[in-house]
Amino acid sequence: MTQKASKLVIVTEKVLQKKVGKIIDAAGATGYTVVAAGGKGSRGVRSSGQPTVGDTFSNVKFEVLTPNREMAVKISDEVAAQFFDDYSGIAYVCDVMEVLHAHTF
Amino acid sequence: MTQKASKLVIVTEKVLQKKVGKIIDAAGATGYTVVAAGGKGSRGVRSSGQPTVGDTFSNVKFEVLTPNREMAVKISDEVAAQFFDDYSGIAYVCDVMEVLHAHTF
Amino acid sequence: MTQKASKLVIVTEKVLQKKVGKIIDAAGATGYTVVAAGGKGSRGVRSSGQPTVGDTFSNVKFEVLTPNREMAVKISDEVAAQFFDDYSGIAYVCDVMEVLHAHTF
Repeated sequence: MTQKASKLVIVTEKVLQKKVGKIIDAAGATGYTVVAAGGKGSRGVRSSGQPTVGDTFSNVKFEVLTPNREMAVKISDEVAAQFFDDYSGIAYVCDVMEVLHAHTF
Repeated sequence: MTQKASKLVIVTEKVLQKKVGKIIDAAGATGYTVVAAGGKGSRGVRSSGQPTVGDTFSNVKFEVLTPNREMAVKISDEVAAQFFDDYSGIAYVCDVMEVLHAHTF
Repeated sequence: MTQKASKLVIVTEKVLQKKVGKIIDAAGATGYTVVAAGGKGSRGVRSSGQPTVGDTFSNVKFEVLTPNREMAVKISDEVAAQFFDDYSGIAYVCDVMEVLHAHTF
């Protein structure tokens, strides 16, 4: 079983974790991975006004494998429209993934 | 020093961390990175019957750089054959990585 | 808003987190993401002499989106020159990312 997939990555603030997860589900994605992340953006601080570099991981990074680019863009557009005016976030896509195995995930 | 590499990503349940690490070693990979991860699969729960979305990261994500696609597929096939009937997991590969520097890793 | 980007990934020892972050900033990158990571390198141990496989994540993984490959290579060269003689580390790049949305990050 090998199939092409797009990988959508969204890094945003931790407070949005549940809401972003719901958008991913609603788009029809079969699953996603989420990792605690820190980082530093172009303003040097997050929207909370506190720097997050260091041991405090106040961001989350979602990775979503989607069967095509359209689903990745749809999720990204929805997340950006709802949250990126008020919260820090970035969304990017890579179209050259191949899924080798996937079970009950 | 620049060399092409494949990047294999395996996300699976945390209880398998040591066993998957051994398979990666046995295949001849020179190293790997592992990160704690949460997520949501197509069944909405992990094999433990508990959802993992939230702050509890009961999954692990392996990233392995391999010198060619064959080694990535070999590792993936072995992990899937041994564990993906009984545990949640996904394995995917990206063939467009270039290693810029690697020291004692 | 869609724009091509390179993604630089650097995995190295946690003690270098601040210093690597400064190099990334100095190169003109607009931001980065950092994640706690464990792993196993070609020597089976980190430079501290202790294995890091398991629950102890003594490494960090940086991900930096750069507008072009040159900036990624520049950051990587600088980090490797300063630290990879004495510390474990790997740096690799992927040139096929597309940024879909980025706000205040």
